[in-house]
Amino acid sequence: MLRSFTADTAVEDAGAGRYRAAIVPGWDVHGNANGGYLLGIAARAMGRACGRPDPVTISAHYLNPGRAGAIEVDTRVVKAGKRFATVTASMRGADERPVIEVLGTFGDLAAGPASPTIMEASPPELPPHTECVPHLPGGGAPGVMANVELLLHPDDAGFRQGRPSGVPRVRGWFRLGDGAPLDTLSLLLAVDAFPPTVFNTRLPIGWVPTVELTVHVRARPAPGWARAVFTSRFLDGGFIEEDGEIWDAGGRMVAQSRQLALIPRAG
Amino acid sequence: MLRSFTADTAVEDAGAGRYRAAIVPGWDVHGNANGGYLLGIAARAMGRACGRPDPVTISAHYLNPGRAGAIEVDTRVVKAGKRFATVTASMRGADERPVIEVLGTFGDLAAGPASPTIMEASPPELPPHTECVPHLPGGGAPGVMANVELLLHPDDAGFRQGRPSGVPRVRGWFRLGDGAPLDTLSLLLAVDAFPPTVFNTRLPIGWVPTVELTVHVRARPAPGWARAVFTSRFLDGGFIEEDGEIWDAGGRMVAQSRQLALIPRAG
Repeated sequence: MLRSFTADTAVEDAGAGRYRAAIVPGWDVHGNANGGYLLGIAARAMGRACGRPDPVTISAHYLNPGRAGAIEVDTRVVKAGKRFATVTASMRGADERPVIEVLGTFGDLAAGPASPTIMEASPPELPPHTECVPHLPGGGAPGVMANVELLLHPDDAGFRQGRPSGVPRVRGWFRLGDGAPLDTLSLLLAVDAFPPTVFNTRLPIGWVPTVELTVHVRARPAPGWARAVFTSRFLDGGFIEEDGEIWDAGGRMVAQSRQLALIPRAG
Repeated sequence: MLRSFTADTAVEDAGAGRYRAAIVPGWDVHGNANGGYLLGIAARAMGRACGRPDPVTISAHYLNPGRAGAIEVDTRVVKAGKRFATVTASMRGADERPVIEVLGTFGDLAAGPASPTIMEASPPELPPHTECVPHLPGGGAPGVMANVELLLHPDDAGFRQGRPSGVPRVRGWFRLGDGAPLDTLSLLLAVDAFPPTVFNTRLPIGWVPTVELTVHVRARPAPGWARAVFTSRFLDGGFIEEDGEIWDAGGRMVAQSRQLALIPRAG
């Protein structure tokens, strides 16, 4: 039974800006909730708090692993303007430990303003789905990979067999496992669901914990398979940035992400 | 008399996480404080609050213009770990209006961990200083441009005479006007001091207000002239992202920035 991202990011208004929710099993990697899933819960609470549905730009700092169970999200509307509202959110687990701290500006992307358009990029070129490589979990409980469909570009999938491409890049097709169309909240999951770009380097790195993730959502995505591309350019000082783009089925760049992740010290 | 960034971002501890400071004239554009300068004040308060000097990743949302005068910055340490501390900051003017809301993770970048290094980019190639174009204020009070030295790549400076390059890119040399070496706080100014990339498009846009600015600081900069490059790829839906890199005099990429800015509606 495939899980629903919308149902599993539901929040209940507890008054005074507080929302109750739960981290649901099935969106995790080895027991720790996916960072985009956590951000989806927080963003749903924040959007509710300010009465605007769409995260236009949102940043999360990751403080402690998100374990399955009850959580609380405390929100504060810092400013509610005509077009945008800026909101903070603090997510805590049942043990009171902070899980993520979030800052976002929300709006309504249903009707974008008439504005000029310049694109200095195109959607990533991907072979047809049947020629791509399903990214399935390697062992143990499948977690988040059971509830999304992720098809890797064959040129970027060799790391799965110990043959990294040598280029810190990952491209692929993405959709929700239950077939629900993407919205501006599930885009937050999409930008954090792919394997790390560093897996395609030849460095012996198996884990890159996220310090911070920022997502700009440009538009509500058209239904259908999205294309994604993630690249890194600077691995230095123990950090790496990972830049992502999600292009919707209509060929529009709907979400742009950047995260800062830690490269664990060698040895 | 050139102003000191360090002196003009000073904060005074008022207890309980509150810091008093002032927005000082001379870091403004037409009376509104530069966004990087405002972030510098907030970051100094945040670093003080958590006892870590360096902003590793910091995001600011811009709420109201910063006018010269007294301000307060309320900070909250969300988590203080072994290596990093995560802190929020709310800056308010004397009229109680919110100016910026900030979320950041701080650490000590004096000794970076031994880690592998991969660079998929090089510092921007710039002609010698004497062949670059000083970016001086166009008229009226000089503001921030009087207190920084900014030399534009001649290929990117034509917009000043109504001849934009057609490429949404701006490159140049940067240092503080008073000759003080850059540090991890003045890097926050550097990433917001250059003219907008959109000035090099052929669109009639004279103003691109920042919604949000995120900066990753990778290392403490070496003294001397820094090189900077700013590019944009997606102008769509009334928004544009501007990606920046600051490279220090030693050729290290010390700060990576991305901002989301509004493209004012035509007409």
